[in-house]
Amino acid sequence: MKALVVVCDGLADRPLKEWGLTPLEKAETPNMDELAAEGICGMMDPIAPGIAPGSDTAHLSLLGYDPFEVYSGRGPFEAAGAGLPLRKGDVAFRVNFATVDENLFLRDRRAGRLRDGGELEKLLRGIKVKGAEILFRSTSSHRAVLVLRGEGLSYEVSSNDPHRTGVKVEGIRPLGAGGGKTARVLNEFIERAHEVLERAPFNLRRKRQGLPPANYLLVRGGGTVPSLEPLEKKFSLRGACVAAAALVRGVCRLAGMRVGEVPTSTTGVDTDLRAEGEEVRKMLEESDLVLYSLKGFDEVSHDGQAARKVEFIERFDEHLPLLRGLADFLVLTADHTTPVEVREHTADPVPVVVVGPGVRRDEVKSFGERSCAKGGLGRIRGRELLPILADLMGKSRKFGA
Amino acid sequence: MKALVVVCDGLADRPLKEWGLTPLEKAETPNMDELAAEGICGMMDPIAPGIAPGSDTAHLSLLGYDPFEVYSGRGPFEAAGAGLPLRKGDVAFRVNFATVDENLFLRDRRAGRLRDGGELEKLLRGIKVKGAEILFRSTSSHRAVLVLRGEGLSYEVSSNDPHRTGVKVEGIRPLGAGGGKTARVLNEFIERAHEVLERAPFNLRRKRQGLPPANYLLVRGGGTVPSLEPLEKKFSLRGACVAAAALVRGVCRLAGMRVGEVPTSTTGVDTDLRAEGEEVRKMLEESDLVLYSLKGFDEVSHDGQAARKVEFIERFDEHLPLLRGLADFLVLTADHTTPVEVREHTADPVPVVVVGPGVRRDEVKSFGERSCAKGGLGRIRGRELLPILADLMGKSRKFGA
Repeated sequence: MKALVVVCDGLADRPLKEWGLTPLEKAETPNMDELAAEGICGMMDPIAPGIAPGSDTAHLSLLGYDPFEVYSGRGPFEAAGAGLPLRKGDVAFRVNFATVDENLFLRDRRAGRLRDGGELEKLLRGIKVKGAEILFRSTSSHRAVLVLRGEGLSYEVSSNDPHRTGVKVEGIRPLGAGGGKTARVLNEFIERAHEVLERAPFNLRRKRQGLPPANYLLVRGGGTVPSLEPLEKKFSLRGACVAAAALVRGVCRLAGMRVGEVPTSTTGVDTDLRAEGEEVRKMLEESDLVLYSLKGFDEVSHDGQAARKVEFIERFDEHLPLLRGLADFLVLTADHTTPVEVREHTADPVPVVVVGPGVRRDEVKSFGERSCAKGGLGRIRGRELLPILADLMGKSRKFGA
Repeated sequence: MKALVVVCDGLADRPLKEWGLTPLEKAETPNMDELAAEGICGMMDPIAPGIAPGSDTAHLSLLGYDPFEVYSGRGPFEAAGAGLPLRKGDVAFRVNFATVDENLFLRDRRAGRLRDGGELEKLLRGIKVKGAEILFRSTSSHRAVLVLRGEGLSYEVSSNDPHRTGVKVEGIRPLGAGGGKTARVLNEFIERAHEVLERAPFNLRRKRQGLPPANYLLVRGGGTVPSLEPLEKKFSLRGACVAAAALVRGVCRLAGMRVGEVPTSTTGVDTDLRAEGEEVRKMLEESDLVLYSLKGFDEVSHDGQAARKVEFIERFDEHLPLLRGLADFLVLTADHTTPVEVREHTADPVPVVVVGPGVRRDEVKSFGERSCAKGGLGRIRGRELLPILADLMGKSRKFGA
């Protein structure tokens, strides 16, 4: 038995003032509705009622982990998403290449939205700081990740990002016990990096072109790399994921899942649904469970674009039949609610439907935030989804006799 | 106020391919449906969503205990069901009388399904092993229970049962810290028991008759006897149970409940419903709460017999009016789902109805796995049932002012 879990990032919404309907309710979705009619529906609190999840914590929860236990910050998941080989206990941070002037006053938090920091990465990888091994990787545009490895490190340090330009960048300070060494290591690395970046041919070229040099590192989002019990051990399911978002790929990688590659995949509504579907099909050949996560819904929601959200929902609905039949079980849900009128994640539960052999099909006929509330699953939590699915797939182990 | 909680072991199911209905939905159950119409209905995860329960862990949960806390193995509940006087910290095991040859190769895991080991029990009770007090009791046919009492014992030991014939029986090995002494005591007891059993007149007779001698003990299912807060203290309810299954009787006994006796009761569909009903009536005279657990549904489900499941459901439904009026409150539910198409326990929630004064009667009109999902109770957990019931009975103690 195989299963495909489709997670539509930020799909769920609240009724819009103008429509009295959510974008999902407004959209024409005959294929999603067919799923609802064939399956068992319900509402799911991605983490718990009243908790507004991030995409990282929500996906952790959907994979059966307790984010309150394993999540201390975004850094480790970004770093894993970037493909860095992490070890339990490493402390990882998100980094921006930024621009400062000669007095360390912040001029641009994103160094003019730098296209690619790969040339700089090579220079920075040469820097050694006493007390910790340092891994550095440039990811996309002005973004990078930084990992510290060694004894006595902690994620409990402040950020050096003042979050506005025209003021001096801050030093990194310890925020909790054990943060002292980490702050010292980071401050030294950042200072040395600044020296290296100032002299980098890449930045000299940028200056000549009138572009802001990427001459400083802003560090934030620190977290300790958790030890996640691999999905395969937890549920006896070989897992894989197809996801454009690096953060989601990082969560899946730390859960021991294979991660598919779709070069034409994007985190927007322009993503290549056909290529993603093809990758899903391929990953299912050697996996029991594939998580397919799409980000476009969330992106237009953060931008407050209701009509574009409806449009992408309808485009995805048209694409849905290609995903049917790829696995015995199909789950369709969201990782959280992102109301277009709020433009941020909220805690509202999300609709969920499970289709496959043996499910207690209910009377829900359409897939939506309110229709699914009448479904047979009732109100479940994100962490309960995989145990329920694994049981339907015949993979649960009886507790007791 | 008194309450009768009827637990139909393995009653709940999934829709069958052929019918599109569960056996409970397929069966004509006017009396169960009347209960549903008069009461408040809901779905109940016996332990938690996605957890496939055993009957022991499920009944523990239904009695308000957390099986993750109090359950380490089946042995203690079997031993309590056999009437052994247990103490907290005793380590109890399930035992099979088996047949080995002169080289300790296993010939029959059940010694020819021995009818009764009572005569052997007497011989084995004479064996003393240094380091632990040993209680041994033959239960039914080839089955027995073994209890170790003393300092430094642990249930964390391997079984000596190779689970197939033609291979040598295994020695018992420690699996965790503290298992060393227990393994030593068990191995010595098993060796001494083998010597005693080889010479037992009972076995010499069997050999003469060409029957496999019951000359070896296979030990498994070890667990530490938990200290359960008695039901009476937990809920101010004097409790009793009527149950054919020894395992369920053991759970109830360890919960401090009285256990009724019905000689004509069986764990099959041929059980004596009338005599059981009579015993329930009697037990209710001196109890506030009687748990009545029937096993026939589960037995036919494990055998994959859908038609016989429907038949037994209908027979039980006809019998139900005799149970009405015996107590102020009547609860009807199952301990877990056993789909006839799976033949094993699964994690699907079970329907539950509570009838009695003051309940918020809902609009559900039939008792089934999908109809009850629309009920007023929503989706609850097994451990919450008795607190809800005790509160309806006026027995809850206000928390706060």
